[in-house]
Amino acid sequence: MKTPLCERFGIEYPIFGFTPSEEVAAAISRAGGLGVLGCVRFNEPDELDAVLEWMHENTDGKPFGVDVVMPAKIPTEGSKMDLDAMIPPEHRAFVERTLDDLGVPQLPDGGDRVNTGVLGWLHSVARSHVDIAMEHTRKYGQIKLIANALGSPPEDVIGIAHDNGVAVAALAGAREHALHHLDAGVDIVIAQGYEGGGHTGEVTSMVLWPELVDAAGEAPVLAAGGVGSGRQIAAAIALGAQGVWMGTYWLTAAEYNLGAHKPGEPSTVQQALLAATSRDTVRRRIYSGKPARLLKTAWTDAWDAPGAPEPLPMPLQNLLVGEAHARISASDDPKVVAMPAGQIVGRCNEITPVEKLIDGLVSEYREAVARMNATLD
Amino acid sequence: MKTPLCERFGIEYPIFGFTPSEEVAAAISRAGGLGVLGCVRFNEPDELDAVLEWMHENTDGKPFGVDVVMPAKIPTEGSKMDLDAMIPPEHRAFVERTLDDLGVPQLPDGGDRVNTGVLGWLHSVARSHVDIAMEHTRKYGQIKLIANALGSPPEDVIGIAHDNGVAVAALAGAREHALHHLDAGVDIVIAQGYEGGGHTGEVTSMVLWPELVDAAGEAPVLAAGGVGSGRQIAAAIALGAQGVWMGTYWLTAAEYNLGAHKPGEPSTVQQALLAATSRDTVRRRIYSGKPARLLKTAWTDAWDAPGAPEPLPMPLQNLLVGEAHARISASDDPKVVAMPAGQIVGRCNEITPVEKLIDGLVSEYREAVARMNATLD
Repeated sequence: MKTPLCERFGIEYPIFGFTPSEEVAAAISRAGGLGVLGCVRFNEPDELDAVLEWMHENTDGKPFGVDVVMPAKIPTEGSKMDLDAMIPPEHRAFVERTLDDLGVPQLPDGGDRVNTGVLGWLHSVARSHVDIAMEHTRKYGQIKLIANALGSPPEDVIGIAHDNGVAVAALAGAREHALHHLDAGVDIVIAQGYEGGGHTGEVTSMVLWPELVDAAGEAPVLAAGGVGSGRQIAAAIALGAQGVWMGTYWLTAAEYNLGAHKPGEPSTVQQALLAATSRDTVRRRIYSGKPARLLKTAWTDAWDAPGAPEPLPMPLQNLLVGEAHARISASDDPKVVAMPAGQIVGRCNEITPVEKLIDGLVSEYREAVARMNATLD
Repeated sequence: MKTPLCERFGIEYPIFGFTPSEEVAAAISRAGGLGVLGCVRFNEPDELDAVLEWMHENTDGKPFGVDVVMPAKIPTEGSKMDLDAMIPPEHRAFVERTLDDLGVPQLPDGGDRVNTGVLGWLHSVARSHVDIAMEHTRKYGQIKLIANALGSPPEDVIGIAHDNGVAVAALAGAREHALHHLDAGVDIVIAQGYEGGGHTGEVTSMVLWPELVDAAGEAPVLAAGGVGSGRQIAAAIALGAQGVWMGTYWLTAAEYNLGAHKPGEPSTVQQALLAATSRDTVRRRIYSGKPARLLKTAWTDAWDAPGAPEPLPMPLQNLLVGEAHARISASDDPKVVAMPAGQIVGRCNEITPVEKLIDGLVSEYREAVARMNATLD
């Protein structure tokens, strides 16, 4: 399973694994893929700095990447207090009432963690993530990729990345996005289909991937959305992608240790993921203000119910639900989970170590190619 | 491009082409695929009988199939007059007003064709389609497949088909549907992803196809939804399907001659299809009462506008919009079209003869397999 991206990044397989967990990201890189650490959960520069240091110590010198959420157009920003004032009281009341109805406990420490996973969506914070990643790259040379989950990164960020020998990738859900990225200097297009977890457009992977491959010309395309088996990697290569970008698939990795869990047991979120079928996701604006695919749970149902308010635009929706996400994340009811997940969650049916997941992908890929060769005259 | 289905059906390529046009269906069969004639537009048994006779005369003895719309559960039925009485006057008024607003002319013959494409959705009419197809099979032995676009066919129909040596296929948009079909005795599962034209579920082809392949065990799966290139056929085979089921792709075939058109020019519908991108479809209940993907036009926009009524359940919605479809179909404004189409419509960019389309699919398929072989160590 070799494509030109393997040589370019010094990796064994063109499997790019996005995950908010440094344990999982490191394991993906150690197993021959490229682990990409999602940075949006880090509010404080020092936190990210410490985690990247840990990544360095646990990746045997192998390359890895970081993923930031950085709109090219700087949104209306200000102190958290200014933004807070823009949230209608009815929205706050709905969130409070819903959490009560669903039996989600208050945070044990009384709210110190209310900003968890919130500030990373602000431009200024995302920008500090870039600065820290570049510092690490100059020190250790392991960070080979910076990916942007939201539009083209700002021009100067692309310049800084290139100056440090770091490739820039950006997610695209439509042909227009991909062309815009490439115009802006992005190196790699991540074509994310409708079925993917998190932000997606309407066009599905089967249609989108080859469309973006054709649009991108010489630039490589990573196939995202719906990849959770070696057969799907084979489909990605068949459709012209040079590799895959997988996210949901790693959430049930044995190394994934974010969220509330009892020692030795899957976390609350993992229990929900293990039980879900491919039909148990919805695409809604309630997570971030933009359409994102989420696990369908009592939380998403509440926002679908009659009388629920319309979600707010980004970044206000993040601020609105930030505390709710923290409370849900600390609680232990798998029926009440707020988690981005793609339709491939139907294939996440057991807790498995990353190395075994990747071995399985590679061997199933080989079987798929053999099956295709058998169809030739 | 050989799979076990080629031998089973006596075809060169496992390309199953669904189309309402006998000209296109015959051309697909002549070019080495299996043309499958959509029967829903035939109100009168004699019409279908004559068209099947024409198919016999124009397919050089090659096999072909028919597609009917036949719910396993017989819906509330009655005379057209009984059903008409169940349509709320507000719905009729909305349709009339919308057609006027959009400038769609009355039918030139004053309404004789109002039932066009309507009665085929009724169980009794679909049943007559089966009877006529079986008669033709006993006479000429060319009809090798009967496909059902809506649930499992009734048990006795499956028995009659098998008695005549005809395989039975049924569309499935979810694992549960596929298992139900196989329990009922269906031979081939057509896994239709979210991106497909016409009736679809929520799960996309990338996720659905391998899920149904695994669920179907030994039974073959045809991959439907999003197929319009040799690369996508390669993806289908990589994902474990034994062939593909393509519909939208043939609507811009040179042989397609349904709908209003000036001599030597593409029809109104084809002009709309040629101009559409992959983002120009919507999935709505307005065509039949069940969610179906349609070309996004001023007609679908009108149903999305504030104040538009909720679509009626099947088969009432068909009756409600039957005359509207006939009027739109006879008119010549490509911005006002009522047409099922999948997201692959973005790849339908020129009028091309069927034989050339199939040649292109086959050669691109071979290139895709070669590209995959180049990734092996």
